[in-house]
Amino acid sequence: MKNEEFRKYGHEFIDWVADYLENLGSRRVVPDVKPGAVRSALPASPPLKPEPMEALFNDFKDIILPGITHWQHPGWYAYFPANSSPASLLGEILTAALGAQCMSWQTSPAATELEDLVMDWLRQMLGLPSGMSGVIQDTASTATLCALLSARERATDFESNESGLRRPLTVYISSETHSSIEKGVKIAGYGRASLRRIESDAAYAMIPEKLEAAILEDKARGFQPACVVATLGTTSSTAIDPLRPIGEIAARHGAWLHVDAAYAGTAAVCPENRAMLDGAEFMDSFVFNPHKWMLTNFDCSAYFVKDAGALIRTFEIHPEYLKTKADPYVKNYRDWGIQLGRRFRALKLWFVIRSHGVEGLQAFVREHLRLARMVKGYVEADKRFELMAPVPFGLVCFRLNDGRGEDALNDLNKRFLERINASGKLFMTHTALRGKYTLRMVIGARTTTEAHVRAAWEIIRSVAGLVLKL
Amino acid sequence: MKNEEFRKYGHEFIDWVADYLENLGSRRVVPDVKPGAVRSALPASPPLKPEPMEALFNDFKDIILPGITHWQHPGWYAYFPANSSPASLLGEILTAALGAQCMSWQTSPAATELEDLVMDWLRQMLGLPSGMSGVIQDTASTATLCALLSARERATDFESNESGLRRPLTVYISSETHSSIEKGVKIAGYGRASLRRIESDAAYAMIPEKLEAAILEDKARGFQPACVVATLGTTSSTAIDPLRPIGEIAARHGAWLHVDAAYAGTAAVCPENRAMLDGAEFMDSFVFNPHKWMLTNFDCSAYFVKDAGALIRTFEIHPEYLKTKADPYVKNYRDWGIQLGRRFRALKLWFVIRSHGVEGLQAFVREHLRLARMVKGYVEADKRFELMAPVPFGLVCFRLNDGRGEDALNDLNKRFLERINASGKLFMTHTALRGKYTLRMVIGARTTTEAHVRAAWEIIRSVAGLVLKL
Repeated sequence: MKNEEFRKYGHEFIDWVADYLENLGSRRVVPDVKPGAVRSALPASPPLKPEPMEALFNDFKDIILPGITHWQHPGWYAYFPANSSPASLLGEILTAALGAQCMSWQTSPAATELEDLVMDWLRQMLGLPSGMSGVIQDTASTATLCALLSARERATDFESNESGLRRPLTVYISSETHSSIEKGVKIAGYGRASLRRIESDAAYAMIPEKLEAAILEDKARGFQPACVVATLGTTSSTAIDPLRPIGEIAARHGAWLHVDAAYAGTAAVCPENRAMLDGAEFMDSFVFNPHKWMLTNFDCSAYFVKDAGALIRTFEIHPEYLKTKADPYVKNYRDWGIQLGRRFRALKLWFVIRSHGVEGLQAFVREHLRLARMVKGYVEADKRFELMAPVPFGLVCFRLNDGRGEDALNDLNKRFLERINASGKLFMTHTALRGKYTLRMVIGARTTTEAHVRAAWEIIRSVAGLVLKL
Repeated sequence: MKNEEFRKYGHEFIDWVADYLENLGSRRVVPDVKPGAVRSALPASPPLKPEPMEALFNDFKDIILPGITHWQHPGWYAYFPANSSPASLLGEILTAALGAQCMSWQTSPAATELEDLVMDWLRQMLGLPSGMSGVIQDTASTATLCALLSARERATDFESNESGLRRPLTVYISSETHSSIEKGVKIAGYGRASLRRIESDAAYAMIPEKLEAAILEDKARGFQPACVVATLGTTSSTAIDPLRPIGEIAARHGAWLHVDAAYAGTAAVCPENRAMLDGAEFMDSFVFNPHKWMLTNFDCSAYFVKDAGALIRTFEIHPEYLKTKADPYVKNYRDWGIQLGRRFRALKLWFVIRSHGVEGLQAFVREHLRLARMVKGYVEADKRFELMAPVPFGLVCFRLNDGRGEDALNDLNKRFLERINASGKLFMTHTALRGKYTLRMVIGARTTTEAHVRAAWEIIRSVAGLVLKL
């Protein structure tokens, strides 16, 4: 494709994107599409000859788009948000155009230095301890794996990298911790049997006394506690594990403390939400995702460590073909994670922070928290509903409860959620809280306003009436 | 930022990108910038108030851009290429705009189905065995880690995920294999001591007889061979490990055969380059990077497996909050790799393949191979130079050799490379081949033409004259 053709379609695509964002609310959130429908509408083999961009763009609009789940929709209340924003989109265009591969300082000095800078901006914005160093990872899954590997190496004096994991290490999470930690425990060679699930309290937060009891029991049996994972804002219900007592216990027993704030970390841009960070000085590592609630296009996960040396020593490798003259004087982020190759992700984050300012991001978070409290009020005011967990952030957990048995309630609420989502006007997902099927409504999409939330609640109320009558 | 402001700057950015691509050749490839210069030109703390996009764009042009290494430059002969292309860029814009998170079929049906489809297109285009299934990973580092983990699990009947790695497994690579395999061996908990580096021949290819001897010796000592990694196109010299004999040995001893064709895999779009794939039926997994030589923006790594079930069983995890009604009928790619969250990467790949057609991609590869052979001819024709390795693809390995001692030659060639790169007109990197400092010139950037290569060679020749006189 010639540059002039790129220019022509580039402009066309920008207009399409602006229109898409403008009118997104009129689309179904989740498409009404059967498995296999998209694939079977496309040729089974690649074309031999070049095809014009016009044909591609049409197929995108006619075949792909009707099969897309619209994560940027104002009716997005599912999972957690994965917000993009106009500023981030503009940054992504430049990142894609430069096509720089940012494994080493030399392979793009400005990318490394901007990453270094914006990660320190984020540290300041969240009130994380000074001295913590940051690196951008793709996802919290990867950042958590980095933490589990650093913990493994520190616990074994960096011998596992050399000889494999020979000592019986243990890792502690709560019953509510995200599945990526179990996945990481398997990948890093601890084995799932090394994982201890600590009981959580009525608010779904880890009980520190239970943690210490488990550690003491393990130590008595010859296990070595390598890592404790505390979550600020669990996936099921945004529960907040108490950081200070957990940190004190981890420190007392020499375990690495990793803090998973993938979703809720963004809330700490507002000083009034920083109580959860009391005890932050105990953290060995901390992750939150600007690609969730901080308007930065997926993927962009912010990982902070107290001891960058331990992280680097876990991953570094120095083949001749990667050595550069600048190595002694610079950060080479390839040694700060799993992947060698790295996108220039700092650019979109820099665009987002500067374009909104810290106060803009604070206002964004505060409005979502206000709307979530409003929905909590709706739930509490309607006797057909039951609030299932505290609402410290943007997530409201609730279900219908008319007093029938638990199994029947689970069936009822499953049907309830399916009916709501079938409307196409909004999209929520579910979880199980102590075995109870629970609807999750997360207020967190960039474009969601009070009017959207009110309209969504009207649909929820009316579907509730329907399914309770069936 | 309002949509109309996005539209305005979107158009401005598109014009800037088109101009950037048009005039890229007039910039220095590698910037002349000191460590710390970019960071110190920017405020140490984030702004409280929003800043206008005009200010950001100006800072991007004035501060960031002068510190960027231009990977898309026609003078790019370093590492391997990380080619973008106009078609891929257009795809990236739509991917960023949708902001879809493609962990499950339900979270974007069209993304999953398009990935399924284009991966099968790639399989057909490279002539990989039918029955292999594909998934897009971010980088070959990650894909290789997936292979090492699947190998670990298969070798231990999926017991390592449960109990940690307790058996003494071994992994076989050549002396020339990429550093990411050693990194993966550490991450997956094998330990570096499990790694066997098999001797390579005069052309830097693994010697199958040495591989079998090492396996037999290990088995006699109670080790279990878990994985053999063969490389098609090594990083240092693009050597080709002989696939069929290595595959037969791996199969005979029950080891997983992973094939790393990160760079050279793209060459297989041309049937005349498929001799290296003889023995492909033995492959358990295969990776190549469309983001290197197939015009698809970084990151996009294509990973193929013979037994998708083994991959899924290695990674799958089923928390309640990720369950969907469609699960029994669809692919959920979150269970095909490390990360839970996934970008919609299939879109740019689909744009690239359709926009160029298979024949366009073949012509692209053939031209680079022709130019590499031309440079090989230049090296062989000039007695001051020594060709250091065969040239099966786009990489020419060479050095100056005036007969002085090896240490002095290493010093000389290091100075030689530094002088060439200091010109700013081209960028090459180095490696060591049997301890000899070697210049690597990779012909593979999208915009590199015969005229660029001739001009680059003129600079190389003239710098050679200079440094030989010093």
